[in-house]
Amino acid sequence: MPPKQKSKAETAESMARRQREISVSEFFLKNRHLLGFDSPRKALMTTVKEAVDNALDACEEAHIVPEISVEIRKTGDARFRISVTDNGPGIVRKQIPRIFAKLLYGSKFHRLRMSRGQQGIGISASGMYGQLTTGSATEILSRTRSAKAAHNIRVQIDTRKNTPAILKDDQVDWRPEFFTSDDNGEQVESHVSRHGTCVSIEMEAAYVRGKLSVDEYLRQTAVVNPHLTLHYRVCSCLKVKENGAGADGVPEAEDAPWITFVRVNKHLPEPPREIQPHPHGVELGLLMQMLKDTGNRTLRSALQHDFSRVSSNMALQICERAGLNPKARPTRIAHQESEALFKAINETKLMRPPTDCLSPIGEEQILAGLRKEIDADFYTAVTRAPAVYRGNPFQIEVGVAYARPGVNKELNADDTVRLMRFANRVPLLYMGGACAITKAVSGVKWKNYGLSQPRGALPIGPMVVLVHMASVWVPFTSESKEAVAHYPEIVKEVTFALQECGRRLSVYLSRHRRQVEAERKKNYMTLYLPHLALGLKEVLELSDRKEKDIVSRLENMLERTHLET
Amino acid sequence: MPPKQKSKAETAESMARRQREISVSEFFLKNRHLLGFDSPRKALMTTVKEAVDNALDACEEAHIVPEISVEIRKTGDARFRISVTDNGPGIVRKQIPRIFAKLLYGSKFHRLRMSRGQQGIGISASGMYGQLTTGSATEILSRTRSAKAAHNIRVQIDTRKNTPAILKDDQVDWRPEFFTSDDNGEQVESHVSRHGTCVSIEMEAAYVRGKLSVDEYLRQTAVVNPHLTLHYRVCSCLKVKENGAGADGVPEAEDAPWITFVRVNKHLPEPPREIQPHPHGVELGLLMQMLKDTGNRTLRSALQHDFSRVSSNMALQICERAGLNPKARPTRIAHQESEALFKAINETKLMRPPTDCLSPIGEEQILAGLRKEIDADFYTAVTRAPAVYRGNPFQIEVGVAYARPGVNKELNADDTVRLMRFANRVPLLYMGGACAITKAVSGVKWKNYGLSQPRGALPIGPMVVLVHMASVWVPFTSESKEAVAHYPEIVKEVTFALQECGRRLSVYLSRHRRQVEAERKKNYMTLYLPHLALGLKEVLELSDRKEKDIVSRLENMLERTHLET
Repeated sequence: MPPKQKSKAETAESMARRQREISVSEFFLKNRHLLGFDSPRKALMTTVKEAVDNALDACEEAHIVPEISVEIRKTGDARFRISVTDNGPGIVRKQIPRIFAKLLYGSKFHRLRMSRGQQGIGISASGMYGQLTTGSATEILSRTRSAKAAHNIRVQIDTRKNTPAILKDDQVDWRPEFFTSDDNGEQVESHVSRHGTCVSIEMEAAYVRGKLSVDEYLRQTAVVNPHLTLHYRVCSCLKVKENGAGADGVPEAEDAPWITFVRVNKHLPEPPREIQPHPHGVELGLLMQMLKDTGNRTLRSALQHDFSRVSSNMALQICERAGLNPKARPTRIAHQESEALFKAINETKLMRPPTDCLSPIGEEQILAGLRKEIDADFYTAVTRAPAVYRGNPFQIEVGVAYARPGVNKELNADDTVRLMRFANRVPLLYMGGACAITKAVSGVKWKNYGLSQPRGALPIGPMVVLVHMASVWVPFTSESKEAVAHYPEIVKEVTFALQECGRRLSVYLSRHRRQVEAERKKNYMTLYLPHLALGLKEVLELSDRKEKDIVSRLENMLERTHLET
Repeated sequence: MPPKQKSKAETAESMARRQREISVSEFFLKNRHLLGFDSPRKALMTTVKEAVDNALDACEEAHIVPEISVEIRKTGDARFRISVTDNGPGIVRKQIPRIFAKLLYGSKFHRLRMSRGQQGIGISASGMYGQLTTGSATEILSRTRSAKAAHNIRVQIDTRKNTPAILKDDQVDWRPEFFTSDDNGEQVESHVSRHGTCVSIEMEAAYVRGKLSVDEYLRQTAVVNPHLTLHYRVCSCLKVKENGAGADGVPEAEDAPWITFVRVNKHLPEPPREIQPHPHGVELGLLMQMLKDTGNRTLRSALQHDFSRVSSNMALQICERAGLNPKARPTRIAHQESEALFKAINETKLMRPPTDCLSPIGEEQILAGLRKEIDADFYTAVTRAPAVYRGNPFQIEVGVAYARPGVNKELNADDTVRLMRFANRVPLLYMGGACAITKAVSGVKWKNYGLSQPRGALPIGPMVVLVHMASVWVPFTSESKEAVAHYPEIVKEVTFALQECGRRLSVYLSRHRRQVEAERKKNYMTLYLPHLALGLKEVLELSDRKEKDIVSRLENMLERTHLET
């Protein structure tokens, strides 16, 4: 039956005329929720996160101890201007437009090395969202170590082509300044750097305090980056209302004090090294591509130099096993004998990937961070040995802080434990339900360790659980980088680390329970001792002195028994 | 303190040298789990889904009643070749390579109209995954209505550039054939079409039966597409083992029967129309872009023709409210007065977006589908009026089937209800936990309607809940299109539809409960009536006849009371 409406039937030819290329900017503009821009509140958070992640990566790569300032300035109804300044190495002028106004552009995607950023999307996406919601441009100030002046550039994205459109390009006299506030809330200059970068983006956003706020993100960032000094304030350009604050309770710019998280030490984390891909994580199709693209003349040298953990000798063994001439041209192998080679590689035992591409936080620093931030009675931390998923090295760390009832008002014995998730030292606040880390925590049998736990859910108790995944490539469930994908190897490693912490917790809890029990018994006895003595006195017809003596001897006995349990 | 390892500090200049463009193919190759390729099992499912979605879209756009055949053929250890054939309009030769071997290319992204595909990623991503895991190419056979011969093309993706590499391009004699099996499992030809497309991809995959299987996906597809005839089989090229099946229990090609889901009717769904964006869903930045790009000469005509629901008169009103000249050039407005225009647009009351861009399944078809597939006692369905999120029209439909204990063995009274999610007639099997639909179902207070429900979870009961979202743009939580993002408008509409079904269910359940109760009472009374009569007979000294009379009158009374309740 033909449809009622007179909508014309398409033909192959009419459909062909409508086929078009979709630029990656257009795609993400329409799918902005994939990048973390699904609500005004999350937009603010995502922008701060992307800018701070970039600043930290840049400082660490340049071996600079980082100082970062974050200012969130209300500029109108539901509008904010977010500015993030760092003392990093700066960015050369030519790269600025593409770094800030082109999606899928960056230095971190094509290498295997742990870093916060990895996609080349984040900060450009924030700029694109600002442009979409307010029509504004991203403003960048940057001064490199060697430069005399700073560059001041304003860019937008041409979303049709995913290319930057430069609106302004000046040289200015600028040095990154960092402010802090004294006890009276007066702004005092903290530090001036010769080099660094400041990025400002105005967008539709909402500032909300609480568990999923920028405040919480920055606090957690300070916990896992003890070498960072961070200045932060939220202020308003709008007129003050009667209660002394602008709309949303945000104070006016002149009155808004800076909150400063001062660094704990000046030790930069061990700088991770770039590695080559491990042969066991390379699929057949990728192997073929690598052989086609190699600069090496022979199969043997390609195997040795393009992969990690393949010595010259190992390369020879692989060639022999595959029945291939080690001096063969790699391009030829790619087309004809790649399957044999692939099979031989996977049958050859190789060392696991090198792990100096990772820079874990370390048990000591995790404990220090937890002690600083969480009032508790019991702390423990575990850093697992590195493991591998799909050829990518990764490392799991877990910290636990347990507070007996009454010790920490924020930790309630009847609440679900507080889970803090981190990936490459970046706090993950949203989408906990979709994260492999949450899955692992829910999957551990916490009842074995003395906590109650609804079936298949997070355990209940006055406890904080911190989980950190460090990897050359964190497999996020979406481009907004809020949850780790469920690779079984990752869930397994997190589970092992949690179980180790759980066992230690259980030892503590049962010792503590015994103590409480003994204490209770002792109190009970002490209460009845005088009556017991009185009874004995009457039955045995003792003197008052004798009675006192008996009471004191009984008390001593009790004391000893208690100590021995 | 300088780091211990002698890793060189980067400078702005050295970092600039490493900045590079990332092609969208490289990005998704590394992030393949975003596209639904995180496990061999899911890879198979995603590929079938993308190919079937495309086939259905093409048939419907060309007003062809669809017939589709899906063959999954085991070609090696953990390797399958997936072939999907349709009787659609075919694809013109020039477009084939880009449609099948270029990410972000298609006809559906840039228009506002309901369709299964929307991103221009799916099938190319499947080909890319096949290429990555087996080094193979995507093979396409296609013949258009007007063509004499079919084209046979083999393509791969050059992932560095995201462009197709053509390996083969021939003309062949081909007409799509569809097979079915008779009762003896013998293959018989079902139908030959003059036009259509067949795509084959070989990849590392796993075939598993069960809730998240291809079988289930195809079964659900048939439920919500009653106009589709679907042929399906899984077979193996490998040698048969002793138990008569190849590896994984898959039968050899010659013996594998076709399963055919025969269409219920030949009514194509109402073809949805393309619409213009609604002004209230357009952000400031997008408005500026649209004014810059318009082909219209005046602001008034741009407003009237580039947007839906803006009449010539409305356009004039908006211009007046914004204090702008209706004859002004749109490009000038874009740069200077767009904010005033934006404000005026949002202060003007406009009709809601047109909804003939949507094609819901309809209450009748949902009921028919449920009745056909689910044995139950009570069925109901609700199709809500269209609503709008972020300017995009969408429509929610809900169907419910409830089976009293014992009626349907697959529905257990102690289990969580079975939730079937659909978006634009496509079944969503994975990632239920992350989906707005699941959230809405868990959020409804089912206890009010007579079901038990753990706090914040899905209800418990022998029930199937079907939820369908139809929209010009379904906001998926990832490119793999498995879960709907949590827009409050969507959750709200699903909730309302569920509550309506819940109320009807509750009426049914309480009537049913009353019936059961009355039945029980009646049985009870009937049991004791003779004893009562005997008692009366003795007390009142009645004759046997009188006794019988009393019993029958009491029974009558009981009958009436029962009927009245």
